[in-house]
Amino acid sequence: MAVYTDIAEGELARFLKDYEVGELLSYKGIAEGVENSNFLIHASNGAYILTLYEKRVNPADLPFFLGLMQHLNDKGISCPLPLSRKDGATTGELAGRPAAIVTFLEGMWMRRPTVEHCRAVGAALAGMHLAGQDFSLERPNALSVSGWRPLWEKARARADEVEPGLAAEVERDLALFEANWPRDLPAGVIHADLFPDNVFFLGERLSGLIDFYFACTDLLAYDVAVCLNAWCFEKDNSYNLTKGMALLEGYVGVRALSRAEADALPILAHGAALRFMLTRLYDWLNTPAGSLVVKKDPVEYLRRMRFHRQVRSAAEYGLKSERAAV
Amino acid sequence: MAVYTDIAEGELARFLKDYEVGELLSYKGIAEGVENSNFLIHASNGAYILTLYEKRVNPADLPFFLGLMQHLNDKGISCPLPLSRKDGATTGELAGRPAAIVTFLEGMWMRRPTVEHCRAVGAALAGMHLAGQDFSLERPNALSVSGWRPLWEKARARADEVEPGLAAEVERDLALFEANWPRDLPAGVIHADLFPDNVFFLGERLSGLIDFYFACTDLLAYDVAVCLNAWCFEKDNSYNLTKGMALLEGYVGVRALSRAEADALPILAHGAALRFMLTRLYDWLNTPAGSLVVKKDPVEYLRRMRFHRQVRSAAEYGLKSERAAV
Repeated sequence: MAVYTDIAEGELARFLKDYEVGELLSYKGIAEGVENSNFLIHASNGAYILTLYEKRVNPADLPFFLGLMQHLNDKGISCPLPLSRKDGATTGELAGRPAAIVTFLEGMWMRRPTVEHCRAVGAALAGMHLAGQDFSLERPNALSVSGWRPLWEKARARADEVEPGLAAEVERDLALFEANWPRDLPAGVIHADLFPDNVFFLGERLSGLIDFYFACTDLLAYDVAVCLNAWCFEKDNSYNLTKGMALLEGYVGVRALSRAEADALPILAHGAALRFMLTRLYDWLNTPAGSLVVKKDPVEYLRRMRFHRQVRSAAEYGLKSERAAV
Repeated sequence: MAVYTDIAEGELARFLKDYEVGELLSYKGIAEGVENSNFLIHASNGAYILTLYEKRVNPADLPFFLGLMQHLNDKGISCPLPLSRKDGATTGELAGRPAAIVTFLEGMWMRRPTVEHCRAVGAALAGMHLAGQDFSLERPNALSVSGWRPLWEKARARADEVEPGLAAEVERDLALFEANWPRDLPAGVIHADLFPDNVFFLGERLSGLIDFYFACTDLLAYDVAVCLNAWCFEKDNSYNLTKGMALLEGYVGVRALSRAEADALPILAHGAALRFMLTRLYDWLNTPAGSLVVKKDPVEYLRRMRFHRQVRSAAEYGLKSERAAV
């Protein structure tokens, strides 16, 4: 949840003159997105989301993020469409920050996803992977293996405050990943953060994907591994195999997983759990008291790491071998 | 800014079945309102605000607040209209809290009000006072003179932490108000919190008033005094006489102020400044670090108190004597 920056109506109205949105009717800061300030705008031509990019987003990455959303829209994927300004650009400046406007996507994110939601998100993820194959821009994943150790260095000294023994446990895992992380799997555009709050549904129908601000170029199967972490664990951190089966069935129904991708799923899921544990741990230790950011518990992802560490095959996540391509 | 309570889509959809809003399309927690949790809802029949009443609101007061909004709508005042459920009630229960749905009002609040905005708000306030004259319910103002001392008792011990000498200054003022507060002025429904964030404009036109959760039965001129405090001081706490003249002209153009009301304006404005200083002081001293509530500085209102203390007549606020009724 975050609205870091307020905007005066006069500066917003001037900013909107560069877009074809019609007359400004209202704008409300909304409690979604941890990284940026988001406003829901009503204008005479429709509803839009205005995003002010706060300091965690590198402005040099905006052409990738916004270009990707345009590309995916062109391919028929339902996601917010960035509006072009009259000068052709998709970003401007507002309140001293880079800013963009995208179409508002109706739909609700599922606070309590069901098996069928998991199936739908698997299929949507695969559809996004296929649609992204001919996207021309690339962006390395700053939060893949090579990025974990620098992040860890900033948290290690105080890690055992969160759970005794955590530091030693992470050191062992990092060494494992650095030696064994898969390199030759199919790569392309991944969402990299497709948690339930980034997937909208209308009734039981998936209505769209949002928040592409971690999207990057990486192993497609890693994105599947992120989703297994994000969708298939229960509140008590137990793995729900039925949800895992549905998510993977949904995925392979649209894009087959190769044998190599299937074999890599345990280490990818283990690494994905570490990635979210690390950013949560960093925020946990570094977010000042009184900040508007709600801190998420890193221990949830430590529990997932321990689960993945003892998984030996993709079948244990629910992947049916006959559905994965050989 | 506040979203205290999140809602799951399933429980919201069930809640909405009791209203004629059509199909739920989206809902977003919005960063408005300090007291309650507010969500902007899109449904197939339109846009609405859902409010969950948090602990500061007494559920027994809801019939007054919601009934008033209905009454004012009936009288042609533009403000949110509470929706009736199929059972006729205007409140239900959601996430364990009393909850209501009102129509969404387009418009923007003015972060930097101009003289013309002040004129418009004066006229709208008078229009609300006239429209409220035949509203049948009453609600005493818990934050008028008799309520100030109990609030002060909870803050006095630490008041000088905020500004040395504050405690003695407030004691003198409280004694003054308790001895001299006017009693025989015209009374009726007042908004009691008509700050800029509660008044919407579309372009230069005032499009509506919101947030009636401090509304009560009290002296009408006290509401004018609240607005002088809320609209006519600049960021440096100086009084803008041109804005004051415009606000008062706007008001008396719709409802005349009696000579007695005009004469009482300095003490009413002084008391109103104390009232907002006290609630801000209490929150300043009692809001835990890490709370999502943005604390407002009580010292702004201490500066206003000192200004009002030396005012001798309504003319000093900009009231033209020929416009006030004798």
